[in-house]
Amino acid sequence: MTNELKYKKPSDITQEPPEELIEFLKGSKALVLVTHINPDGDALGSTLALGIALERLGKSVALFDRDPVPEFYRFLPGWQRFTNSDFSFLLKKFRALNGRIDGLILLDCNSPERAAIEVPSDIPLLIIDHHETEKTFDSKGAAPAIKWIVPVAPATGMLVYKLIKGLGVRIDHDMAVSLYTAIAIDTGTFRYSNTTQEVLQIAAELLSLGVRPEMVSEALYDSWTTGRFRLLIECLNTLEIDSGIAITHVTEEDFKKTGTSSEDTESFSNFPRMIRDVKVSVFLRQIGPDKWKASLRSKGDINVAKIAEVFGGGGHKNAAGFMTEGRLEDIKRLITEEVKRSIGEGVKG
Amino acid sequence: MTNELKYKKPSDITQEPPEELIEFLKGSKALVLVTHINPDGDALGSTLALGIALERLGKSVALFDRDPVPEFYRFLPGWQRFTNSDFSFLLKKFRALNGRIDGLILLDCNSPERAAIEVPSDIPLLIIDHHETEKTFDSKGAAPAIKWIVPVAPATGMLVYKLIKGLGVRIDHDMAVSLYTAIAIDTGTFRYSNTTQEVLQIAAELLSLGVRPEMVSEALYDSWTTGRFRLLIECLNTLEIDSGIAITHVTEEDFKKTGTSSEDTESFSNFPRMIRDVKVSVFLRQIGPDKWKASLRSKGDINVAKIAEVFGGGGHKNAAGFMTEGRLEDIKRLITEEVKRSIGEGVKG
Repeated sequence: MTNELKYKKPSDITQEPPEELIEFLKGSKALVLVTHINPDGDALGSTLALGIALERLGKSVALFDRDPVPEFYRFLPGWQRFTNSDFSFLLKKFRALNGRIDGLILLDCNSPERAAIEVPSDIPLLIIDHHETEKTFDSKGAAPAIKWIVPVAPATGMLVYKLIKGLGVRIDHDMAVSLYTAIAIDTGTFRYSNTTQEVLQIAAELLSLGVRPEMVSEALYDSWTTGRFRLLIECLNTLEIDSGIAITHVTEEDFKKTGTSSEDTESFSNFPRMIRDVKVSVFLRQIGPDKWKASLRSKGDINVAKIAEVFGGGGHKNAAGFMTEGRLEDIKRLITEEVKRSIGEGVKG
Repeated sequence: MTNELKYKKPSDITQEPPEELIEFLKGSKALVLVTHINPDGDALGSTLALGIALERLGKSVALFDRDPVPEFYRFLPGWQRFTNSDFSFLLKKFRALNGRIDGLILLDCNSPERAAIEVPSDIPLLIIDHHETEKTFDSKGAAPAIKWIVPVAPATGMLVYKLIKGLGVRIDHDMAVSLYTAIAIDTGTFRYSNTTQEVLQIAAELLSLGVRPEMVSEALYDSWTTGRFRLLIECLNTLEIDSGIAITHVTEEDFKKTGTSSEDTESFSNFPRMIRDVKVSVFLRQIGPDKWKASLRSKGDINVAKIAEVFGGGGHKNAAGFMTEGRLEDIKRLITEEVKRSIGEGVKG
């Protein structure tokens, strides 16, 4: 194992923000910031931090997310600022208030569909994201005026940190909490391979502004409801392992028994990954009679996106998913066969 | 919650190593490094890093730990260097080889008992640790010549980092992996309140030397045996929650069934802490017929050391333990009563 702990390239340094983006924002008066549905810490933290920074520059700002801020992210300073319903009404009101809307900034995603919005063709669209562009634009509304997409960036929060500096705004405590949370969540609080030297340097700087890491990690990791924890136990009790493939599931009955719902299964698929010999973890949750949603997680070079594609789904190399119908036992058997075939064929990278 | 995220004092900077310690080491030729029984990442990483650094300076070095290096720490460069048996034979051999022993350095603990060794009175004893001194010395053997104990240091690895710099040795890849692991494990990979600005700055520097954080965290967190994971499931199935107190246990029967042993229960007491409403987690493991070892973990200001003292044990504010005898149900009831009383009385700080 020691041999694998080799030197990494020392410079996965995130690029600086484009000058035209900085100029555009400086020249604007009223801006609408939007992030993706089912927002995570990077989505919320990036949007809040940039929102506060733009207000420091005297801009009017509105924040939108289709879905409510999850309860455990309600420590983020200013989370109440998000509007969740009726995007077109928000635009109308905001335009009336400011006499104009200079731009719509999409954060942590790169298509209006991912945010469940339609962008009016007279509002310039700006994109700040670190996801690979998966689709060409379905051009409802305007084509983006400025795109700043940096797939090697560990988090959109890293880009927003650089942008705030580029705008000449001093980062304060509230921005620091949001940026720290954004960066922490997308690097697994500094456990994943995207934890670069620059990530830790910026995190250190944010701590000097008053972030308390234990408050952030307690909010992120130690704020489960009892029902959710009981559901996890039900899930783990179903664990089957075959040839390095772990399968677990929860049924609609389990949800009922524990008073939980589908969003409570977030991260369940990660637990069997703790086992050394498990290469792929498959988690199935029931979404209807004989209807299941599968989440696949893998270690190292095993590409579960390719496996998910066989079942009509997709995703990333180490995290993918799909929906399927059938009897639970049949589904488990089919997935296991497919994973075995993939590993055997060395479906990698 | 936002209100609690206040500025923290920016300067919990670990002090520099004492000049006399640096001079002593520079003037030595043969040194024995020892750490505590049941060694963790801070114990092993600190000892290995300092050992390599001293060898770079041309010293002869021997490493001792009573217990073998746990399997999941066997990615630490040089872990094979630890001798595990017969400390007095090691001293004899090492003295014969070098004609002398200039000093014995105790790391990550501050009494020879904690390392299960006896120190001959003619060998100077040096101590480098970040634990509170719990007892006055039981002076089997020499009184320590030099003590460098810094309870505010987040990890002994932080002290060793400073000491290596103080010795003028350039930190290389292997030392960096050991120091990073030491600091990572004692700060919960940067999740605990002891994650200071300095911790992240040093971690960033260690990354620049080739540490791959994902390799370290996979070794630390994703290397469970299947038996250990099955034991965790058995444990979680016993979960009872009463007034914010979670109690779980494993029996000798569970160990047998899963082919595991007591060291496999490491960190089990942490899992129920994930539940928002759980303030204290009590984990009981059977060590004989009607004999139990209790581990207590708490959140925030609840002082479980004081609770453990009532049962003849001890520990730290948020992590303590004790041994007890009796029927499981009686023990659970007694502990719950005591915890309730403590919380009620506000046994804090």
